[in-house]
Amino acid sequence: MQTCNEKRLQQFIEQFSEYGKTENYGVTRLSLSEEDISARNRLQELCEELGMHVVYDDMGNMYATLRGKNDLPPIVMGSHLDSVVKGGRFDGVLGVLTALEVVSTIKENNIELDYPLTVVNFTNEEGARFEPSIMSSGVLSGKFDKEKMLASTDKDGITFGNALRKSGFEGSEANRLQEASAFLELHIEQGPVLEQNNLDIGVVEGVLGMVCYEISVRGESNHAGTTPISMRKDPMFTAANLIVDMQKELAKLDGNLVYTIGRMNIYPNIHTVIPSKVTFTLEARHQDASVIEGVTRIVNGLPSVANKCTVEKKRLWDRDTVKFNEEIVNAVESACQALGYKGARMYSGAGHDAQFIASYIPTTMIFVPSVNGYSHREDELTPYEDCAKGANVLLNAVLKLCKEPVKA
Amino acid sequence: MQTCNEKRLQQFIEQFSEYGKTENYGVTRLSLSEEDISARNRLQELCEELGMHVVYDDMGNMYATLRGKNDLPPIVMGSHLDSVVKGGRFDGVLGVLTALEVVSTIKENNIELDYPLTVVNFTNEEGARFEPSIMSSGVLSGKFDKEKMLASTDKDGITFGNALRKSGFEGSEANRLQEASAFLELHIEQGPVLEQNNLDIGVVEGVLGMVCYEISVRGESNHAGTTPISMRKDPMFTAANLIVDMQKELAKLDGNLVYTIGRMNIYPNIHTVIPSKVTFTLEARHQDASVIEGVTRIVNGLPSVANKCTVEKKRLWDRDTVKFNEEIVNAVESACQALGYKGARMYSGAGHDAQFIASYIPTTMIFVPSVNGYSHREDELTPYEDCAKGANVLLNAVLKLCKEPVKA
Repeated sequence: MQTCNEKRLQQFIEQFSEYGKTENYGVTRLSLSEEDISARNRLQELCEELGMHVVYDDMGNMYATLRGKNDLPPIVMGSHLDSVVKGGRFDGVLGVLTALEVVSTIKENNIELDYPLTVVNFTNEEGARFEPSIMSSGVLSGKFDKEKMLASTDKDGITFGNALRKSGFEGSEANRLQEASAFLELHIEQGPVLEQNNLDIGVVEGVLGMVCYEISVRGESNHAGTTPISMRKDPMFTAANLIVDMQKELAKLDGNLVYTIGRMNIYPNIHTVIPSKVTFTLEARHQDASVIEGVTRIVNGLPSVANKCTVEKKRLWDRDTVKFNEEIVNAVESACQALGYKGARMYSGAGHDAQFIASYIPTTMIFVPSVNGYSHREDELTPYEDCAKGANVLLNAVLKLCKEPVKA
Repeated sequence: MQTCNEKRLQQFIEQFSEYGKTENYGVTRLSLSEEDISARNRLQELCEELGMHVVYDDMGNMYATLRGKNDLPPIVMGSHLDSVVKGGRFDGVLGVLTALEVVSTIKENNIELDYPLTVVNFTNEEGARFEPSIMSSGVLSGKFDKEKMLASTDKDGITFGNALRKSGFEGSEANRLQEASAFLELHIEQGPVLEQNNLDIGVVEGVLGMVCYEISVRGESNHAGTTPISMRKDPMFTAANLIVDMQKELAKLDGNLVYTIGRMNIYPNIHTVIPSKVTFTLEARHQDASVIEGVTRIVNGLPSVANKCTVEKKRLWDRDTVKFNEEIVNAVESACQALGYKGARMYSGAGHDAQFIASYIPTTMIFVPSVNGYSHREDELTPYEDCAKGANVLLNAVLKLCKEPVKA
C-alpha cells in the first residue's frame, strides 16, 4: 500500500493554520478576506511547485491539475479554505491539504497515473461572510443563480462580486469544473460518532435530507401579577407543551432521526410580563424521505389553536437526501480495509460542497474523527495521525479509481 | 352621598395626558423628565389654586395639604405621575387626579373636615428610568437605602440624585410623609378581573406575595446535523420537559396562584446548533405564604441533572404578602356599597407605593377596571365613568374615615 507522509501533512496543516490564526489557536478565514487570499496564494505556490497547472473559474474556485498519462476527465479532490469566525484548523482546509499531500506523495514516488489529478478549493463554502453557504459549488451545479450570488453582501455592504474581483481570483466560466471522473472530498466528521465508536474513517454514503420549520405560538401579553391563570393566553407554557408532545412523536419515528430546536425567541422577554409570542425552529434530518415526511406530518398535525393561543407553522426550507456514487463509496471502503483502518459507512448530517457536485460528477466523501464532535470552534481537533489515515484512504481510493474507473 | 364631578375629573385626566403624550395617545413620562416636571408643576398649581400648601421631601415626593379643622395627622391620598415608556394615561396619575378631584369636591361643597387632607405624588414608582421601581416610598418606609437610590443611573448615566436636584423638586427630609391617619391609593387594576366580572370597584385587601426564580439548564452545544440524539445533552428539550412538569405541579397548588415564565434565553440561538444553555425565569404570586412555599418546594424539587443536562435554580427575589388595614378596607367597602357600586375584595398582583407605605401608615387601595386588563400600553383604558366611580368611593371613604377614624 502507498501511504502519505504524515509529517509533511502536519506541516501543511500548521502552515495554513497561520492564515487567520486566532488567539485561541483557531482560525478566522472568511471567504475572500485578506487571510483567505493569503492562503489561496500559498496553495497556488505549493501546487505550482508540484508542477500543477492552476486556474480559477468565474466564482473564484481554484483548480490545480497534475497532468495524467492520458487526456481523460480528471479525478478531483478537495474542499474549501474558508472558515467561520473563530472556527477551527481542520474544517474544509483539511480536504484541500490532504489532496495536496496525495499529489505530493504521487510525485515523490514517481507514480504515473492515466488520469489527471485536480486539487480544488471551492469559494465560500461556509457562507459566514456571504450567504448562502456552499455558494460556489451551488452555482456550478445550477442550484444557485450566479447573479444573485454575486450580489450577496457581507456585513459591510461589500458584494461577493466585488470582493471576488478585488481578490484577483476571478477567472473564466470556461474553467469551471465540468466533466470529471470522480470527486472525493475529505472532511472532518463534525460529529461524535467516529470517536465514540473508535473508528478511523467514515465512509460517507450521502448527505442527509432535512427539513426546517418555524413555529410561532401567539397568545396575549399581560401583567404577570394581575392576570388569573384561567384568563391567560400564555404562549410560553403552550409552546413547552407542544415541544414535549412533538418530542414524543419524533422519538417514535426512527432512531437515526436527528431533530433540534436551536432557536427560540420570546416577546417581550421580560420576567414580569406574560409573553405575547414564542417562536421557535424545529429542524430534522434523516436519510429516508419517508422519515422526513413523518416529521412533516407531526408538524402539520400541530393544532392551529392550543390553550387559547394560535399556532402557525412555516416551512423554512428543506433538502432531499443526496446519495453518493456507490462505486466510489466502495473504492473508499476497500482502501480503508486494505489499510487496516476501522471504518464504517455513514451519512453526513452537515452540508458540504460534495452534495452539490454529486449532482453531475460521481462523488463521495471521506470523514475523519472530530475530537468531542466539535466543529466551528477554535478547539476543533483531529489528531495528525487521524488526518494522515484520511489522506492514506484518499490516496489509495484515487489509485484504485485510476485502475478501476467508475462506469459512466 | 357626596359625589365628585366626572366632567372635571375627565378634564384633569385629559390635561395630564398631554404631558408626555405619544403618537398613539399613550404617555411617556419618565420620572423627573421634562414631561414629568411639567406635570408636577401643573399639579402644584392646581393644588395651590385649591388653597393647599405644597412641599417636597428629599426624594422629590410632593405633598399638597388642605388644612383641617384640627391639627390631626392627615388623611393621605395619591399615587404617582411617572409612567413607563409608551405607557397609558391612567396608571398612577389617576390616583393623584382622583385625590385632586376629591379635594376639589370638598372645597366646592364647603365641607369642613376635622382632618387635613394630603394629596401625594410619589417620585419614580415605575422604575422605568431609574431602578428600582417603587423607589421613593421604598426609601420612606426604610425598605431602600437612600444613598444607593440617589446613585441609581438612567441609560444616559445621569444619577437619580442629579436629576432630582436639577428638577427643582428636591426638598427637605423633614417633609417626608411621617405620621398620617390613613393612606388611600386609587389605581387601575392592570388586570382583567373587574371587567370580566362586571365589577366597578376592587376593594383591595393587600398585595400578593411573590417569588421569582431563574432556572438554568446547561447541556452541550453541537452541530444539529451530526450529533445523534442519544449522544446529545440538549438543554432545550430538557427545559421544555421541566416546564411542563412544573406546570402540572403548580396547577395543583391553588386556583388563585399565578405563575409566569416571562423570560427565556437560548444560547447561541442558531437553528442549526444544539443549544448549550437555556435560562428562564419562573415567578409566582399568591396571598398565602404557604402556597408560595409550595412553589419553592416545586422549584427546589427539580432534579440537579436531567437528561444529561445540569439544572441550576437561583432565587432572584421574593416579597411577603402585604395585608392592608382592615378598618380602612371596610371603609372603602362601605362607601362602595353605599354608592350602589358593584365591588369585590381582591388582592393586588402588581406592586404599588401602598405596599411600602402600609408598613407604617394604615393603608389600602381602590382599584378601577382596566379594559382588556391592559396596562403599561398606550391603549390602556379606564372609561371616565369608571374613573368617577373610583373617585366617589375615595371621597366617601375619606369622609367616613373623618367621622370614624381608624383606631391606632
